Amino acid sequence: MSDFQVVVVGAGLVGALAAISFAKQGYSVSVYDVRKDPRKTENAQGRSINLAVSARGLGAIKSIDASYHDKLVARSIPMKGRMIHVDGKEDSQLYGLFGECIHSIDRSQLNIDLLDEADGYDKVSLHFEHKFASADFDNHKAVFTSKASNTDVPVHADLLVGCDGAYSAVRSAMMRVQKMNLRQEYIEHEYLELSMPAKNDDYQLSPHHLHIWPRQEFMLIALPNPDKSFTSTLFAPTHLFKKTPDEAVAFFRDVFPDALPKIGEDRLREVWQKNPVAPLIQVTCAPYHYKDRCILLGDATHAMVPFYGQGMNCGFEDLRVLNTLLEQHKVTPQATWELGAALEAYSAGRKDDLSAILKLAMGNYIEMRSSVTSRLYLARRHLDGLFGRLFKDSWVPMYSMVSFRDDIRYSDVIRRQARQSKILEALLVSAGGVLGLSLATSLLYRAGRVIEGVTD
Amino acid sequence: MSDFQVVVVGAGLVGALAAISFAKQGYSVSVYDVRKDPRKTENAQGRSINLAVSARGLGAIKSIDASYHDKLVARSIPMKGRMIHVDGKEDSQLYGLFGECIHSIDRSQLNIDLLDEADGYDKVSLHFEHKFASADFDNHKAVFTSKASNTDVPVHADLLVGCDGAYSAVRSAMMRVQKMNLRQEYIEHEYLELSMPAKNDDYQLSPHHLHIWPRQEFMLIALPNPDKSFTSTLFAPTHLFKKTPDEAVAFFRDVFPDALPKIGEDRLREVWQKNPVAPLIQVTCAPYHYKDRCILLGDATHAMVPFYGQGMNCGFEDLRVLNTLLEQHKVTPQATWELGAALEAYSAGRKDDLSAILKLAMGNYIEMRSSVTSRLYLARRHLDGLFGRLFKDSWVPMYSMVSFRDDIRYSDVIRRQARQSKILEALLVSAGGVLGLSLATSLLYRAGRVIEGVTD
Repeated sequence: MSDFQVVVVGAGLVGALAAISFAKQGYSVSVYDVRKDPRKTENAQGRSINLAVSARGLGAIKSIDASYHDKLVARSIPMKGRMIHVDGKEDSQLYGLFGECIHSIDRSQLNIDLLDEADGYDKVSLHFEHKFASADFDNHKAVFTSKASNTDVPVHADLLVGCDGAYSAVRSAMMRVQKMNLRQEYIEHEYLELSMPAKNDDYQLSPHHLHIWPRQEFMLIALPNPDKSFTSTLFAPTHLFKKTPDEAVAFFRDVFPDALPKIGEDRLREVWQKNPVAPLIQVTCAPYHYKDRCILLGDATHAMVPFYGQGMNCGFEDLRVLNTLLEQHKVTPQATWELGAALEAYSAGRKDDLSAILKLAMGNYIEMRSSVTSRLYLARRHLDGLFGRLFKDSWVPMYSMVSFRDDIRYSDVIRRQARQSKILEALLVSAGGVLGLSLATSLLYRAGRVIEGVTD
Repeated sequence: MSDFQVVVVGAGLVGALAAISFAKQGYSVSVYDVRKDPRKTENAQGRSINLAVSARGLGAIKSIDASYHDKLVARSIPMKGRMIHVDGKEDSQLYGLFGECIHSIDRSQLNIDLLDEADGYDKVSLHFEHKFASADFDNHKAVFTSKASNTDVPVHADLLVGCDGAYSAVRSAMMRVQKMNLRQEYIEHEYLELSMPAKNDDYQLSPHHLHIWPRQEFMLIALPNPDKSFTSTLFAPTHLFKKTPDEAVAFFRDVFPDALPKIGEDRLREVWQKNPVAPLIQVTCAPYHYKDRCILLGDATHAMVPFYGQGMNCGFEDLRVLNTLLEQHKVTPQATWELGAALEAYSAGRKDDLSAILKLAMGNYIEMRSSVTSRLYLARRHLDGLFGRLFKDSWVPMYSMVSFRDDIRYSDVIRRQARQSKILEALLVSAGGVLGLSLATSLLYRAGRVIEGVTD
């Protein structure tokens, strides 16, 4: 019998880690991607989008490739909290109760690193500029179109792993043979990437924060880069991007007067004209597998808005969850009889968690752009943190559950948070009641004095 | 300037009526369909699926082609109500308060008729066995693959009208250029078509009813055909279809003892083995148009479960609504400047109605298979009908709003029904209260007598 062939479609972050993961387990892996090899293109390296990697992403990498995990952490910039910019003032809100950080990393660099790692395995072959065309799952066949020769390349695929993103072509192929629920939703907000260059070879803002300029309906954020610049992003309702470059500058002067000089008026004008405004989309589907022939991972099953910084983290966690199930079902390259059962367990078990994180991601947009400035939110947050410190494992603030714990499932985050919220609200209402009562008493007392003709 | 070319993809019910509609308005229309011409295939005519056409479908046909409307009504079988089969007994529940009917028609025959009508127009050309391959909307181009020659046929298309159903290829093409929300959902129930042949050249059941055997989690229904047979359908949770043919017969003997002899055990065994079990899917998207270049109609935007008998009716209504907007925007073959605005108004205005009918369709499954047997439902229905007769236009039972009125939008049906439901519930609760009070009084009185030592 020939080797069991795993074919990964998509050489992005999740695809590259999937290749490493399957190779580590002894499978022969070939990876196909429609794009050029990012290690050989100037362009991809030039674009500095950064990501925040946190516990779930790091935990998954550690479980797959411990040595790379340490390299990654060393290279990242720890961000210990949000810096809220309101009225020209800065307010640091720490993420963790015990010094935990999320880690800002360069997306392209991470992708290149993971591909280099994958390429180091004899069992892995990488094929760029090959577009997934079709699959005949039942006959173990996938077809790719080579961009160079414009010819179809048939490939033997015992297991096809679709890591090809929100608009996954593998998912579309799977939908032809598998009944699948699908939801694709654009929200009425879009985003534009800006940047804040280094000044006098130094960061213009604290490099250990994720900076937010919350303005209720829209917000500006900034994440640090190793070259001492910040990558900044404006998230706003679609109509705001219809402004001319000059109107945009006036708008920034009005609403982000402290951020504008850091970006620069000319740069803003240029970027506003040149850079594409990108949509915000959520896509999810179910199930994620077809028999023992195909599995979808990453954005193909859970493209989410970026507000919880969990897109990649969740994609890496997909792999950790899958690996656990492969182990439980004793699936190895030599013994794949239970592969179908393992994939079925993956589809059944992962569903609630993926719908939970999509919900959390959307909810965090409102928190970031609006709630963070409310007094009630701050009071609640204070109490939440206090309880988190007091009760440790039995009380974990939501942000910590999502970002600093990979042993709490996303669906459990929602369940636990609902319970914690109820308690916090009850306490705040009682506190409000006591406050209100004493205020009312004092007002009545004063009213009485006024009636009696006695004034202060 | 050459003629404005309308290209309709899909020669099903909505596609054929769309061709007639555009031709009537003076457009040049070409219709492409991947299937063979149903007028030339034995197969399609042999299959007797029937549909219920009601006010919205009839109204739309009348507005487009009044002469065909009369032909259609004459050929259909009026169904005046549901016949509920429980415990071997029949209970007739009329649909309308004023004698209104829905009309059972043969789907294939209707399709053939509409195609014949369309073919009668000089301005219409029909092309079968041509598969939609791609579109370059901005350059007015669509490409079809001819099945006969296996070659690509480029077609000039000023307006592409996608009437190609739930899995619309035109919709997929539009999604490449237009941000689109999409939701595709399979429900956990499926269906199987059976039949009840004529007996002694007569119907085995009342031909003027839609017959239902409601059994809470599943149901059997039957609609009359002109040849005195019934087309019957079993709707049930997926797992029920895993039974062997013998188990199926035993199951029918147990739960449908009165229906089984009408189907026949041997026929059931045969059909259970041979006929495909079909999924139940809901698909919807938004928007429905791309600039002035493309519009989606029918199942491509609102594939729904069949329980309100509104799939085709809603598709025909799409055309009536579109025509009204084309007229309001003064769009003609010679003056199409406002076409984009008309299509935009269609997308904006039709959205609430389509999501309403999808919701109503799903809700009616529970009503048909379960509620219809409940006492409270019947009490409510009685009161609902009473008010409908008393207050006429200001109180219309939901079924009547959906099926007998084409002047009440689906979204208004939901709004009006919510108001009516509140009133009905309040009345039933009060009635229950009065009943309860009198019961309690009488019990207390009796208790008093018992305590006093006086017994009846």
